[in-house]
Amino acid sequence: MTDISWITLATTAATVLAIGIGVLGPALAMGRAISSALEAIARQPEAEKSIMRTLFIGLAMIESLAIYVLVIVLIVLFRNPLLEYVLQAVS
Amino acid sequence: MTDISWITLATTAATVLAIGIGVLGPALAMGRAISSALEAIARQPEAEKSIMRTLFIGLAMIESLAIYVLVIVLIVLFRNPLLEYVLQAVS
Amino acid sequence: MTDISWITLATTAATVLAIGIGVLGPALAMGRAISSALEAIARQPEAEKSIMRTLFIGLAMIESLAIYVLVIVLIVLFRNPLLEYVLQAVS
Amino acid sequence: MTDISWITLATTAATVLAIGIGVLGPALAMGRAISSALEAIARQPEAEKSIMRTLFIGLAMIESLAIYVLVIVLIVLFRNPLLEYVLQAVS
Amino acid sequence: MTDISWITLATTAATVLAIGIGVLGPALAMGRAISSALEAIARQPEAEKSIMRTLFIGLAMIESLAIYVLVIVLIVLFRNPLLEYVLQAVS
Amino acid sequence: MTDISWITLATTAATVLAIGIGVLGPALAMGRAISSALEAIARQPEAEKSIMRTLFIGLAMIESLAIYVLVIVLIVLFRNPLLEYVLQAVS
Amino acid sequence: MTDISWITLATTAATVLAIGIGVLGPALAMGRAISSALEAIARQPEAEKSIMRTLFIGLAMIESLAIYVLVIVLIVLFRNPLLEYVLQAVS
Amino acid sequence: MTDISWITLATTAATVLAIGIGVLGPALAMGRAISSALEAIARQPEAEKSIMRTLFIGLAMIESLAIYVLVIVLIVLFRNPLLEYVLQAVS
Amino acid sequence: MTDISWITLATTAATVLAIGIGVLGPALAMGRAISSALEAIARQPEAEKSIMRTLFIGLAMIESLAIYVLVIVLIVLFRNPLLEYVLQAVS
Amino acid sequence: MTDISWITLATTAATVLAIGIGVLGPALAMGRAISSALEAIARQPEAEKSIMRTLFIGLAMIESLAIYVLVIVLIVLFRNPLLEYVLQAVS
Amino acid sequence: MTDISWITLATTAATVLAIGIGVLGPALAMGRAISSALEAIARQPEAEKSIMRTLFIGLAMIESLAIYVLVIVLIVLFRNPLLEYVLQAVS
Amino acid sequence: MTDISWITLATTAATVLAIGIGVLGPALAMGRAISSALEAIARQPEAEKSIMRTLFIGLAMIESLAIYVLVIVLIVLFRNPLLEYVLQAVS
Amino acid sequence: MTDISWITLATTAATVLAIGIGVLGPALAMGRAISSALEAIARQPEAEKSIMRTLFIGLAMIESLAIYVLVIVLIVLFRNPLLEYVLQAVS
Amino acid sequence: MTDISWITLATTAATVLAIGIGVLGPALAMGRAISSALEAIARQPEAEKSIMRTLFIGLAMIESLAIYVLVIVLIVLFRNPLLEYVLQAVS
Repeated sequence: MTDISWITLATTAATVLAIGIGVLGPALAMGRAISSALEAIARQPEAEKSIMRTLFIGLAMIESLAIYVLVIVLIVLFRNPLLEYVLQAVS
Repeated sequence: MTDISWITLATTAATVLAIGIGVLGPALAMGRAISSALEAIARQPEAEKSIMRTLFIGLAMIESLAIYVLVIVLIVLFRNPLLEYVLQAVS
Repeated sequence: MTDISWITLATTAATVLAIGIGVLGPALAMGRAISSALEAIARQPEAEKSIMRTLFIGLAMIESLAIYVLVIVLIVLFRNPLLEYVLQAVS
Repeated sequence: MTDISWITLATTAATVLAIGIGVLGPALAMGRAISSALEAIARQPEAEKSIMRTLFIGLAMIESLAIYVLVIVLIVLFRNPLLEYVLQAVS
Repeated sequence: MTDISWITLATTAATVLAIGIGVLGPALAMGRAISSALEAIARQPEAEKSIMRTLFIGLAMIESLAIYVLVIVLIVLFRNPLLEYVLQAVS
Repeated sequence: MTDISWITLATTAATVLAIGIGVLGPALAMGRAISSALEAIARQPEAEKSIMRTLFIGLAMIESLAIYVLVIVLIVLFRNPLLEYVLQAVS
Repeated sequence: MTDISWITLATTAATVLAIGIGVLGPALAMGRAISSALEAIARQPEAEKSIMRTLFIGLAMIESLAIYVLVIVLIVLFRNPLLEYVLQAVS
Repeated sequence: MTDISWITLATTAATVLAIGIGVLGPALAMGRAISSALEAIARQPEAEKSIMRTLFIGLAMIESLAIYVLVIVLIVLFRNPLLEYVLQAVS
Repeated sequence: MTDISWITLATTAATVLAIGIGVLGPALAMGRAISSALEAIARQPEAEKSIMRTLFIGLAMIESLAIYVLVIVLIVLFRNPLLEYVLQAVS
Repeated sequence: MTDISWITLATTAATVLAIGIGVLGPALAMGRAISSALEAIARQPEAEKSIMRTLFIGLAMIESLAIYVLVIVLIVLFRNPLLEYVLQAVS
Repeated sequence: MTDISWITLATTAATVLAIGIGVLGPALAMGRAISSALEAIARQPEAEKSIMRTLFIGLAMIESLAIYVLVIVLIVLFRNPLLEYVLQAVS
Repeated sequence: MTDISWITLATTAATVLAIGIGVLGPALAMGRAISSALEAIARQPEAEKSIMRTLFIGLAMIESLAIYVLVIVLIVLFRNPLLEYVLQAVS
Repeated sequence: MTDISWITLATTAATVLAIGIGVLGPALAMGRAISSALEAIARQPEAEKSIMRTLFIGLAMIESLAIYVLVIVLIVLFRNPLLEYVLQAVS
Repeated sequence: MTDISWITLATTAATVLAIGIGVLGPALAMGRAISSALEAIARQPEAEKSIMRTLFIGLAMIESLAIYVLVIVLIVLFRNPLLEYVLQAVS
């Protein structure tokens, strides 16, 4: 196999597994946050506004972590900075 | 085996395992959120409207994480950007 | 062994294991949601209607995650897009 | 060993392990749902009807997940779509 | 070793391990269901009839999952559909 | 080593490990069921009869799972159906 | 190494590990049952008789699981039915 | 290395690890039983006699599991029945 | 494969897996913090201001940990200081 | 390497790891027993005598399990019965 | 591959994984501390000052542990003291 | 490498890992015992004397387990009885 | 590769992973201690002084454990006593 | 590589990992002990003296376990008794 083929193979396998593992933490964290928000609403229906605001800020923070994984995965799939060295060496 | 065969083999095995692992977190998170929503309704039936609204926003956020995994898996299966380098090198 | 044989072997083994792992999360999530629904009915029998509606929406969302795994597994078994490159290379 | 022998070996080993792993999640989920149903009946004997209806819908949903695993296992054992390529290549 | 010997070895080892793993989930689920049934009887002795009915339906559903594993194991041991291809290739 | 020796070695090692793993689930389930029965008797001594009946049915169901493992292990040790193919091929 | 030596080595190592793993489940189950019995006696000293009867039946059922492992281990060590095929092939 | 050396090496390593793993379960079970006995005495000091009797029977049952492991380990170390076949083959 | 290709392959695989693992801890921590904040608001709606301030400081501290991982990953992908030695040795 | 050297190497590594693993269970069990004893004394200071007696019997039983591991380890290090066969074969 | 390339490869892979693992503990610890601080504020709003002071000292102590990992990672990436020996040996 | 070098290498690596694993159990057990002692003192300050006596006996018993590991590790490092056979064989 | 290169490679990889693993325990312990301190202040604001003193002593003791890891890591990176033997052997 | 180099490599890697693993148990134990001490002070501020005394004795006992690991690690790094045999064999 050529160099490029090996790199394609390993990158593809690693990225799909990484995104699969990487959403585990954010998903569990979101589940916990939403679960608490629902309990909070059930206990204090009149505080719904400030509960929703806190929940949205929290979900945005957790989502940002999943976005980090997604961004690294997309960089590696579409614009891997190390690939240029390899392409130079090959050509 | 040719380069393309190895990549097909590894990509196929990795993607099915990744989607299998990747739904674990979102599924558990959804289970927790729905479970809390049901408890909240049982405790405060008159707050059903705001509970449902919070639950739907939450489920949509968690679903988005599973969609990230699905999108990466589909990109890798149907439009793997790295495959072009390999096909160029082969042809 | 020919290329096609290796790919058949690896795909078959990976898909059955992936579907085996992939139903774990949705199953546990459904168990939790149904469990909470039953407790909610026992506590508030008159809210059964809105509990059932929430439960059905929830189970549908969780089922969708298991369907993602099933769809990827079926695509890979019956219409693997990467297999065409291999078949072209072989023929 | 011939190609067909290797595929038979790997498929057989993978399918029995996959069905063994695949019933773990649904079994635990069913155990939880039935357990909650029994507690709910003990707490609200007069709501037995709606509890049983919810439990049956829930068990059917969970059973469907185990059926997905069983179907993929049976497809792979009896009508593996990828096996035709191998048989063509062999003959 | 002949092809048939390798397949016998792998099938035998995989089936005994699979049945060993496959009863884990159903066993734990049954334990949980029976445990809840006993607690429910202790709390509501007069609801014994409907508790027993729910428990029996539940145990039957869980037992069905263990039967799936057992059936796949017995098919693979006594009537493995893939073995015919191997026997044809050998003879 | 001859074919028969390899199969003997692998079967022996796999069966003892499988029976070792296979009793884990039933044992824990029995422990849980008996534990609940004892608590139920302590709380409702006059319901002992119906508690014992439920416990015995439950223990029998769980024992059946352990028996499945034992039966597969004994079939594989004493009357392995796949061994005939090997003995035919050898003789 | 001769065939018999390899089989001796693997059987010996597997049996001691299997008995080591196999007592884990029954031991934990017994611990749980005895623990509940002690609590039950402390709560209902006058129900000691029926508690002890239930405990003894339960311990006997759990012990039976450990005996299954012990019996398979002893069969494999002293009267392994597959060993005859090997001894025939050797002599 | 001679056959006997390999068997000695593997048996020695397996037995010490097996006894190390095998006391884990009984130890945890004993810890639980004693812990419950102490709590029971603290709650019902006048029931000490029947608590001690139950505890001793329970500890004896759990100890019997550890003895099973010890006996198999000692049989394998001092009087391994399979070793005779090897010694015959060597001499 | 050239040196540069191996380094590209290993770096790419390691970075995507590392970012996938590295967001697990911060995500769970954020989930816990937000969950507590929501409960705190539900219990003390008038202390919302000081709760939000504490939550924001906390989320910023946890985010900083995820940023550490992201920074190391980006350094390694874009400006790996060790790569210069390799490029010097190659040229 | 000579036979004796390999056996020394494997025995040494296995024994130190086995004693390291083997004290885990007894240590946790002792911790639990002592912890319960302290709680029992705090709740019933006047029952100290019978608590201490039960605790001592319990610690002795748990210590016996750790002694089993220690004895097997010392037998294997100082008087390994299988070593004689090896020494005979060597000399 | 040259020596320097192997070291670059291994160092790069190890450092990104180490920082990924190393933030797990501090992140969970921070999550716990912040969670407790929020609960404490909700229970004692007037003690906010001393709660915040304790929280900041605690977060600083936990952050110091993450900094240890970061410092070792940066030393190894930018100023690895062992690399000089290698560079001397190469030149 | 000479025999003695391999044994040194394996013994050194095994002993440091064994002592690292071996203190885990005793440490957790001590933590639990001390934690209970502190709670007991807080609940019954006047029973401090008998609490301290029980705690000291308990800590001594747990420490003895850690000492077993330490002794075996020191024997293996300084006076390994099996090393004499190797030294004899070498000289 | 030269000896020095292999040692550099292994030392570098092991140290970064060790510091990553080594801060896990202290971090979790600190999180627990700080969490308890915050709860204690919320329950007894007037005992803040003695709570802070106990917390600081405790954090210092836990920090000392992380320092042990850091010191060993730095010794191994900067002043590895075993490296002299290697450098002597090389020169 | 020379013998001394292999031993240096393995010892270095094992020691840093061992100290990393070895502080895990003591750290968690300390966290638990300090946490209980803080709760005890919050509940019984006037018993601070005897709580502190018990805590200090406990922390010293747990620290001793971490010291065991540190001592073995330092012995192995600086004065490995087995290294003399190797140095003799080399010289």
